[in-house]
Amino acid sequence: MGSLHADNLESISVCSQNPLDPDEFRRQGHMIIDFLADYYRDVEKYPVRSQVEPGYLRKRLPESAPYNSEPIETILQDVQKDIIPGLTHWQSPNYFAYFPSSGSIAGFLGEMLSTGFNVVGFNWLSSPAATELESIVMNWLGKMLKLPESFLFSSDGSGSSGGGVLQGTTCEAILCTLTAARDQMLNKIGRENIGKLVVYASDQTHCALQKAAQIAGINPKNFRAIATSKTTEFGLSPNSLLSTILADIESGLIPLFLCATVGTTSSTAVDPIVPLCEVAKRYGIWVHVDAAYAGSACICPEFRHFIDGVEDADSFSLNAHKWFFTTLDCCCLWVKDPNALVKALSTNPEYLKNKATESKQVIDYKDWQIALSRRFRSMKLWLVLRSYGVANLRSFLRSHVKMAKQFEGLIAKDKRFEIVVPRTFAMVDYNVEDQTNEINQKLVESVNASGRIYMTHAVIGGIYMIRFAIGATLTEERHVNLAWKVVQEHTEVILGALDGKLN
Amino acid sequence: MGSLHADNLESISVCSQNPLDPDEFRRQGHMIIDFLADYYRDVEKYPVRSQVEPGYLRKRLPESAPYNSEPIETILQDVQKDIIPGLTHWQSPNYFAYFPSSGSIAGFLGEMLSTGFNVVGFNWLSSPAATELESIVMNWLGKMLKLPESFLFSSDGSGSSGGGVLQGTTCEAILCTLTAARDQMLNKIGRENIGKLVVYASDQTHCALQKAAQIAGINPKNFRAIATSKTTEFGLSPNSLLSTILADIESGLIPLFLCATVGTTSSTAVDPIVPLCEVAKRYGIWVHVDAAYAGSACICPEFRHFIDGVEDADSFSLNAHKWFFTTLDCCCLWVKDPNALVKALSTNPEYLKNKATESKQVIDYKDWQIALSRRFRSMKLWLVLRSYGVANLRSFLRSHVKMAKQFEGLIAKDKRFEIVVPRTFAMVDYNVEDQTNEINQKLVESVNASGRIYMTHAVIGGIYMIRFAIGATLTEERHVNLAWKVVQEHTEVILGALDGKLN
Repeated sequence: MGSLHADNLESISVCSQNPLDPDEFRRQGHMIIDFLADYYRDVEKYPVRSQVEPGYLRKRLPESAPYNSEPIETILQDVQKDIIPGLTHWQSPNYFAYFPSSGSIAGFLGEMLSTGFNVVGFNWLSSPAATELESIVMNWLGKMLKLPESFLFSSDGSGSSGGGVLQGTTCEAILCTLTAARDQMLNKIGRENIGKLVVYASDQTHCALQKAAQIAGINPKNFRAIATSKTTEFGLSPNSLLSTILADIESGLIPLFLCATVGTTSSTAVDPIVPLCEVAKRYGIWVHVDAAYAGSACICPEFRHFIDGVEDADSFSLNAHKWFFTTLDCCCLWVKDPNALVKALSTNPEYLKNKATESKQVIDYKDWQIALSRRFRSMKLWLVLRSYGVANLRSFLRSHVKMAKQFEGLIAKDKRFEIVVPRTFAMVDYNVEDQTNEINQKLVESVNASGRIYMTHAVIGGIYMIRFAIGATLTEERHVNLAWKVVQEHTEVILGALDGKLN
Repeated sequence: MGSLHADNLESISVCSQNPLDPDEFRRQGHMIIDFLADYYRDVEKYPVRSQVEPGYLRKRLPESAPYNSEPIETILQDVQKDIIPGLTHWQSPNYFAYFPSSGSIAGFLGEMLSTGFNVVGFNWLSSPAATELESIVMNWLGKMLKLPESFLFSSDGSGSSGGGVLQGTTCEAILCTLTAARDQMLNKIGRENIGKLVVYASDQTHCALQKAAQIAGINPKNFRAIATSKTTEFGLSPNSLLSTILADIESGLIPLFLCATVGTTSSTAVDPIVPLCEVAKRYGIWVHVDAAYAGSACICPEFRHFIDGVEDADSFSLNAHKWFFTTLDCCCLWVKDPNALVKALSTNPEYLKNKATESKQVIDYKDWQIALSRRFRSMKLWLVLRSYGVANLRSFLRSHVKMAKQFEGLIAKDKRFEIVVPRTFAMVDYNVEDQTNEINQKLVESVNASGRIYMTHAVIGGIYMIRFAIGATLTEERHVNLAWKVVQEHTEVILGALDGKLN
């Protein structure tokens, strides 16, 4: 009996249906859309930062994959029961942590189309639309940002021009440009000098650069995180850069690469691109401008001046998946000299040879990035640009900046708090004035443990600051007002307890 | 009037609706599901390889992004009209090119959920479920592959153990392990010796390795693509490896890294892991086993022996997005010593510090990969494993192998053709016997230009081979029979024309 039963089970387990059956796809697909629409409707109700303990999921899930198939209905119940409590809800309107991961309907739909087609667009031939749409939307976005022509594809698609490419993340974008710069230099001075190459940035530059330098084989001793200070609002000082470069040259080292940031992670500081490029160019340094977060805002005329000087840089990137309504991952990278990327990153195996490539009339984006395989990311960016248009995109970004101003105003009016760094975009850096870092840390932990809102922190020059970043798509004024109430309440409790101790 | 009209337009263009409005999400989401269900239903009708000319899309799309928003209905019409003709249809049942990119309903739904939640899971805290589910499914799949315990997380989650991580692509997986191996070695022998490190592979190894070595700063002169031959069925000979290593040591170089392949791109050759590891271990070489394509088949007991010996390797990877029903991108990497990755790839900026990380009870996957930001990829792998279960997954893979056998049988019976390399998995390498490479190339080009099926090619030892790779999810026996008819028809025409010329 037992074995018969097992046999029955085994036969039941074998799907007669093709795993891509269109009717079943339709049925299950509609279920997931409803599941996610309900999720967005309810997301405000969940604790923003997950409240689970390490190892929670191992206790709930089996140790091995099931032998037989399980129905989607059961799986979705488990997503609700086991996964959602373990999510930190980046799409919650009460999410103000790190930087936003701003989803949108258009971004989601674009990702669905790209996932549905599931093409592998390593070269033009493998799916021409994937390559061509990418070049087109990168020109569209480049024009919205008023990037100089030298970063764009020429309008007839011919000749040696700059151009844009979609990478996964800024880390990858920087690693690719750094590798290009490195090989350009080593081809001049000889491979054996790799240990002499120096990479420059400020102490506020994102850790992605350090990691990229590490991977690219730059000696960790030759990574310069130049100190910034309040006097330059934590932007990199061209004079500091210059003196660091001169000291390195004096020691027989070779300046290679500078990463300037527009909108640093800790305080959205802006490195002054014009004078930094001026210094860097004197020494033949490749300049990359990392505008991962703040670049999006530069589609608004009133913010464009923050990237003035980009015409003197070699490459420029921003993350559309941060504050541009495009789901993770989507890093937009423009370079003036794509050939530098191609020289460093191309491979040309026989099994990928084809006439289109040989005609040199097409781009094979595999040679502009780390990986061979690549997703059809331009689809989502295209949908975002078309579904909202320039006017709405500007208006969405401005509404976030406006809400950040409002929050800044609330903070400024309450004497217990201090704005630590002046707000530039949609993030406010503040703390409880005249209190230790520990008290401020306690406040952040207490607020986040409540699950009502989620904020994170930074430390600059020894000062602990609370980062309040607005940009979650669903956030409205009422959420910002609620957040302010939550912060006040928790501050009162913490300061009250302190007073109790003191009395 | 004109300006009034323009003002009206501008005001119309501003969405009153939030770009993540749940009701609008529901409406548009259902539209896209129907669009894609129709696409799968009709995909057979489209030319498999896109028939467009370079630059086709630039002629159809505007030069700039729209100022005002456009309705999803219009955008979807344009997808149908402008994008679909430019796609090469990897999901078509008549797709036999490169390797498969095997989508499935479960993989698609998982990607939707992950995109919908849109969490950025760089560390545990940023979304515990994303990290924990990844560790769990990597153990599930590791057990399905009967990987040794040393590659898996210990069941209590404690202590120093191996473990798995989801990367985007094999290129990234190799770059990470190579960087780990490099830094481990340089820490012993000194940074200044980076120019002496040598990387080993066969001349059949995927170009991803060469690219990874290039990026990691390995001197291109120290990249050894060791020749293979028909006598070893294009597998890497341990004796050739040994003599290459000895020659390098003799020249003062330092052996670092070996990439052994299970299922090479050109002919699905299998490098003999046991003796290769035996040689490599003598010289302290890090061995990575790249089973990008064929690894999936090893969940079937009858194929598992191809990865025998993996217990002596340091890392192992396969692409679930190739032949495992998980949409692009999803590369599964297991390592014995995650600390080697962490040492080479970790960064610890203040703005990411948190108690969970400090407790050392959690994994922060950002330190196992190139990028900081990471998508919730385990969701799709979890859905694939649960929706189909081990039994069906084996049965799907076996059906592809069976169809490849069938195609091989058809080829073998027709005297005009030759099987160039014996079939091992679901790919058949064949050509028109006694004809030049040019004639065979002409055949491939003629078949592909017809749009009825799509095949690609490889050249090994100077011999042009037609690669016929079965694995598109929708492919059934009837498609293989059709493909055979198409190949015969085009062969007749080409050989007929030849005869005409000769007579």
